[in-house]
Amino acid sequence: MNIHSKYIENAVEQLSTLPGIGKKSALRLVLNLLNRDKGEVEAFSNAFIEMMENVKSCALCHNISDNEVCGICSNPSRDSGIVCVVEDIRDIMAIENTESFKGLYHVLGGVISPIDGIGPSDLNISSLIDRVQSENTKEVILALNSGMEGDTTNFYLYRKLSEFDGIKITSLSRGVAIGTELQYADELTLGKSIENRAEFKGIIEPRF
Amino acid sequence: MNIHSKYIENAVEQLSTLPGIGKKSALRLVLNLLNRDKGEVEAFSNAFIEMMENVKSCALCHNISDNEVCGICSNPSRDSGIVCVVEDIRDIMAIENTESFKGLYHVLGGVISPIDGIGPSDLNISSLIDRVQSENTKEVILALNSGMEGDTTNFYLYRKLSEFDGIKITSLSRGVAIGTELQYADELTLGKSIENRAEFKGIIEPRF
Repeated sequence: MNIHSKYIENAVEQLSTLPGIGKKSALRLVLNLLNRDKGEVEAFSNAFIEMMENVKSCALCHNISDNEVCGICSNPSRDSGIVCVVEDIRDIMAIENTESFKGLYHVLGGVISPIDGIGPSDLNISSLIDRVQSENTKEVILALNSGMEGDTTNFYLYRKLSEFDGIKITSLSRGVAIGTELQYADELTLGKSIENRAEFKGIIEPRF
Repeated sequence: MNIHSKYIENAVEQLSTLPGIGKKSALRLVLNLLNRDKGEVEAFSNAFIEMMENVKSCALCHNISDNEVCGICSNPSRDSGIVCVVEDIRDIMAIENTESFKGLYHVLGGVISPIDGIGPSDLNISSLIDRVQSENTKEVILALNSGMEGDTTNFYLYRKLSEFDGIKITSLSRGVAIGTELQYADELTLGKSIENRAEFKGIIEPRF
């Protein structure tokens, strides 16, 4: 591409370092910025610098936070006896959006993956063990994504956590998604769904 | 979305002002930035501020430029007698990529569109007229996108420019694109293509 301006080329270069944004779309976005007021672009740019300067990792659960301890960990109305272990902060957002969970979280920051050179010591596992030991944790929910690495990590955590007495270790239920027709569900999921069948509790009300 | 950090919320908000980027993808991009070094994010942010501070509009053709006059207008090997009128700087890049044009450009900055409240005075038309009058322009190529607004603007420019003697006014040829099968070409294009048929000049060599 013939851009004829090293500043625009640099801006395009920087924007295209973001995942899923190629050179052509980056140019489209940069030209959109170029049409704005200088103040608007300053606000745009400063948002990222301010974010880097101010966003911390929660000292307890490693969630993103503006303070030392995040809004979930410091909320007294949440049940500190249940800790839900997730891979990524986006998983917290997804679970929070369901409004079905009132316990606390623990962000591992990834899963054990020998191929990528990620071992247990690269993840927030020791802080989870410390937390479970020192706090009055009654239940740990393993909510990692299913798959080879997720399952390995789940098993590793299960082995570590089962050393402590009185802690219930659970995992997310897997089954046919609500709204999916049985004939289109994959065999593994449908198999698990029959295996882990639960007592019928009446009709699930449709949510609109 | 429950982000729990006003700084991240602000960064997501700013990124999602870009066209085609929604809140969810903006969050994905912001979390990618959050995983980088502070220095990298500063380089990212500064690219846009530097761009706003340094990029100018070429005094002659309104192309983007790091200097008063852009690299195309100041290039002595280009034919200053031919001016190609385009809507947008991206059109310049597209034509430059063909390496088929060695004249100069003039960026209108849009097309006449009464619905959007854009009249001739909102576009770089008077500077085009001045340029054509004062410089030794032999040919003006109208290269606006076809469509109601583009055609209206072409006609307006044609009326204005035909007042001056000795200026040839041309427009881009429209026809069946190279590589398109006739049966799939739209009727309007195929009709124009037959109407404006040109003398056969031998085989077009395939470009790889």
